[in-house]
Amino acid sequence: MEVLGLEKVVQDEAKPGNFLADVDCFCVSDNYYLGRHKPCVTYGLRGLAYFHVTVEMGSKDLHSGVFGGTVHEAMTDVAMLMTKLVDANGKILIPGIYDDVDPVTQEEKDLYGPISFNLDEYAEELGLPSKDPLVYQTNEEALMHRWRFPSLSMHGIEHCFSGPGERTVIPHKATLKFSIRLVPSQTLDKVAALVEKFLKDEFAALSSGNHLTVEMVHGARPWLGDYKHPNYNAAISASRKVHGIEPDLTREGASIPVVLTLEEATGKSVCLLPVGASDDGAHSSDEKFNVTNYMNGIKTLGMYLEFTAMNTVEGEEY
Amino acid sequence: MEVLGLEKVVQDEAKPGNFLADVDCFCVSDNYYLGRHKPCVTYGLRGLAYFHVTVEMGSKDLHSGVFGGTVHEAMTDVAMLMTKLVDANGKILIPGIYDDVDPVTQEEKDLYGPISFNLDEYAEELGLPSKDPLVYQTNEEALMHRWRFPSLSMHGIEHCFSGPGERTVIPHKATLKFSIRLVPSQTLDKVAALVEKFLKDEFAALSSGNHLTVEMVHGARPWLGDYKHPNYNAAISASRKVHGIEPDLTREGASIPVVLTLEEATGKSVCLLPVGASDDGAHSSDEKFNVTNYMNGIKTLGMYLEFTAMNTVEGEEY
Repeated sequence: MEVLGLEKVVQDEAKPGNFLADVDCFCVSDNYYLGRHKPCVTYGLRGLAYFHVTVEMGSKDLHSGVFGGTVHEAMTDVAMLMTKLVDANGKILIPGIYDDVDPVTQEEKDLYGPISFNLDEYAEELGLPSKDPLVYQTNEEALMHRWRFPSLSMHGIEHCFSGPGERTVIPHKATLKFSIRLVPSQTLDKVAALVEKFLKDEFAALSSGNHLTVEMVHGARPWLGDYKHPNYNAAISASRKVHGIEPDLTREGASIPVVLTLEEATGKSVCLLPVGASDDGAHSSDEKFNVTNYMNGIKTLGMYLEFTAMNTVEGEEY
Repeated sequence: MEVLGLEKVVQDEAKPGNFLADVDCFCVSDNYYLGRHKPCVTYGLRGLAYFHVTVEMGSKDLHSGVFGGTVHEAMTDVAMLMTKLVDANGKILIPGIYDDVDPVTQEEKDLYGPISFNLDEYAEELGLPSKDPLVYQTNEEALMHRWRFPSLSMHGIEHCFSGPGERTVIPHKATLKFSIRLVPSQTLDKVAALVEKFLKDEFAALSSGNHLTVEMVHGARPWLGDYKHPNYNAAISASRKVHGIEPDLTREGASIPVVLTLEEATGKSVCLLPVGASDDGAHSSDEKFNVTNYMNGIKTLGMYLEFTAMNTVEGEEY
């Protein structure tokens, strides 16, 4: 893919003599606490493979009364493909998709025990009436499926009737939008190839006479930082010092592409050190930021700078 | 359902002493030739049962990166239900839905032989690249599935992402809009009950913890006229006289509710006598009306009035 905007700036500035060339390590504060109160330091992000799947039946929408019953409808084909992607519990059904997912090690498993997380509060935060619509009912499973396993979400369908009320149209074209969140060591190329082959095979089996296109329109790779690096020691120590408790070591389910860009352009460690709470409503119309988090955030980031400035030698305790 | 506008006017006017009380028979010219040139007289219409099927996950849309993998998504549930409704060839899969469909009699079958219909032209008219996306490849099958068998079309999904581009939302709510075209002797009540029970059972089997509502939001009954009634003799004779050929006896796949209203309010015969060609583009932005059809339409409708005025006694030949 083409190198754009920020990515290009970072790559240029990482060259010898430029602004980022002598940086020791990076800290990005662009995510949130796992809950409302306990701070965390974050060492992983999922990637993203976003697909458009279009079935076309012809060149014009048809009246379902006049023509319904005689054509292979685009929406019916799309529906068939939709149910092949994922089961009712969110397990992705595309063959081979889990092959490159790193196995869970005991060391990784041990990281989840101390994490402060409450499924009732989580359900409330998601606007769910109860915990029932949650697929997993233990902290470890729920967190692992947010952070370290891939997930598939269907976002909607374009070119069909999407307004309120009733229309009796047979859409001649239907574009399903879905995406897969990627984790180490899945790659964009392989995932794109698996998805395309699978959908084309399934579509061919329908023998509908319609036309299918599958396109990966956006891709971001997953990222995993080394949480034993001194950069993380600085972040953890700063957070501990300010809040008086040990911060959680977390990952994020979403993507922040610049993290990978910084790491790859400079070869230096990047850590995520959030200052906002989980219920801040990021990017929403009622976004807020607690004064406590603001004050502690200033202190934590200041102290992080102090600790990294004091010593960036590997293994050093702060 | 509430009696509204035109339906109420017709019912009032059919009362003794009012405008429609002494009418002998009705002719509605609100449909089209089956093809571009050959006239027809139409004796049947399909009905319509329009459904909204809504799955709700909670009260707010979620970010697929942050939360994907931990919730039972509304779109996934809806997709599961979509594929249960109809197979790739348009066969409706709701148990019992075909039970009340009248069997095809030999007399009815014989009506299809003389009908002028060309599947290549039909595919062209539908904007299809070829005949391939047509489910049936014989005239009789294609016409029967337009006119005298029920069909199910999915029109679209509301409350999900339907615009161009990419959004990484997990919609908390998804409303599938689909409708079934009904034929004699299917009834709205029974179809609504079958659909609701089936979808609720299928949804319960998903155990998703989400909330389902199924609603029939619009209903119109199918209609079948007696094409041996003198009213039809008048229409057929008028068409034959003007065009010099025997008109096709056809049905329509769509619904024209006033036809049933006129018939039921007065107990008199209704026939459909179209004057426009199949490629007029009814209700579309480029609608046209051929001068030839206009002129012949005037003559045909005038002659129809003449023939019905001459004699409306049953069995009489014009």
